[in-house]
Amino acid sequence: MTEAASRNIISRRNRPAKPPLSRDVIVSTALHILEMEGLPGLTLRRIATALDTGPASLYVYVANLDELHALMLDRALERGHLSESRRLPWRDRLKALLRDYFNVLYERQGLAQIALSLIAAGPSSLRIWEMLLSLLQEGGVDDLKAAWGVDLLILYVTAIAAEQSQRQEGDESLERVKKALSTASKDQFPRVFALKNALLAGNGASRNDWALDVIIGGIAGGSQTVTTAAPRVRRGSGRKR
Amino acid sequence: MTEAASRNIISRRNRPAKPPLSRDVIVSTALHILEMEGLPGLTLRRIATALDTGPASLYVYVANLDELHALMLDRALERGHLSESRRLPWRDRLKALLRDYFNVLYERQGLAQIALSLIAAGPSSLRIWEMLLSLLQEGGVDDLKAAWGVDLLILYVTAIAAEQSQRQEGDESLERVKKALSTASKDQFPRVFALKNALLAGNGASRNDWALDVIIGGIAGGSQTVTTAAPRVRRGSGRKR
Repeated sequence: MTEAASRNIISRRNRPAKPPLSRDVIVSTALHILEMEGLPGLTLRRIATALDTGPASLYVYVANLDELHALMLDRALERGHLSESRRLPWRDRLKALLRDYFNVLYERQGLAQIALSLIAAGPSSLRIWEMLLSLLQEGGVDDLKAAWGVDLLILYVTAIAAEQSQRQEGDESLERVKKALSTASKDQFPRVFALKNALLAGNGASRNDWALDVIIGGIAGGSQTVTTAAPRVRRGSGRKR
Repeated sequence: MTEAASRNIISRRNRPAKPPLSRDVIVSTALHILEMEGLPGLTLRRIATALDTGPASLYVYVANLDELHALMLDRALERGHLSESRRLPWRDRLKALLRDYFNVLYERQGLAQIALSLIAAGPSSLRIWEMLLSLLQEGGVDDLKAAWGVDLLILYVTAIAAEQSQRQEGDESLERVKKALSTASKDQFPRVFALKNALLAGNGASRNDWALDVIIGGIAGGSQTVTTAAPRVRRGSGRKR
């Protein structure tokens, strides 16, 4: 046996077999990197390195980082616990489902930011849309309001998840707010001065709960007219000004 | 005259004077870097380089990047146009003000993400809170709801600005959504299937306008009880779960 052949055999035995590349493996690896290194570290090159391959090999399975983000979000939602109790009134079930959605985004650093940058449309997102639309229908919300309402509810939940996961522990900005409020001039800012306790009142959970009630109440009970003067306008491009 | 002295004189004449370092100069420079290079490029080191100094010199004027972000946001809001027409009903003035706030965040790449990561509390933010609180008071909204409502309205506007400024031109995620909706199974997702046109209907402006009506309607008209069971709980830490 030559020395080279011997080295080869040892190497094969000691080295774990490379897992075959697949969309599934790429998405799992990306979620793992997101968890360990955060969003700034999540590049196709980094994922390729973790999979012991080159970035070009990844393009067989995902078109680009944007598509990968969408797949990651869908995977995380698929794994997340979603409440489906039939015994509570529709409003409570709607809120429970939105809290579950929040938790999925909040638990993985960077995922809420990803969710804010794209419109998710994988099977897990469709499932959540379906549940939200059904609950709003049960609440007597008409179709157009339900459709736009789902968009608004998901945006709100994504936003609080992004906001809260970005804020650092021992947040200094709260101290700045308290200081600013305690020194706000009564003459210059009379309403702020009068309401400074209310502005700081309540904890996060009670504020979020109130906000969901406000939005759901607005969707279900309001007289806001849905105007779809341009019903087929591309939504994404339309939102950009 | 020695050669060294001669070089010195030439150098002084040709080189522009370094601007004296100040908080103001640091904030302007940071906003300029944000505009040119985006949020990932905005580090204290990068700002120090642009100002031809070392990072340590900056700490005389700003405690850290987080404080600098707060100052940048306040400066941008100070410069932004804010509608203050007295002739329109309070709801329209409230919406106009929120659209102005949106524009300030949307026009500077990365600023909405900064706004999402902190609670702004500089003089320009206080001025906007004052205006929002006054408008809600004019609309007959009680104090606690007004205080929490301002928080919700600002979060919503910040979130749509972050969402829309992060989405790329020629957004592929919209194409993914259209494809997902057009191929959604009627059996598996009956409500999504039934509402697929509604889900894509409307342009961005009409959706945002509707969403503001929903939220304002919810704040002004709803029966949602504000529960401040723990009125002095630190807001930031409370919101973390």
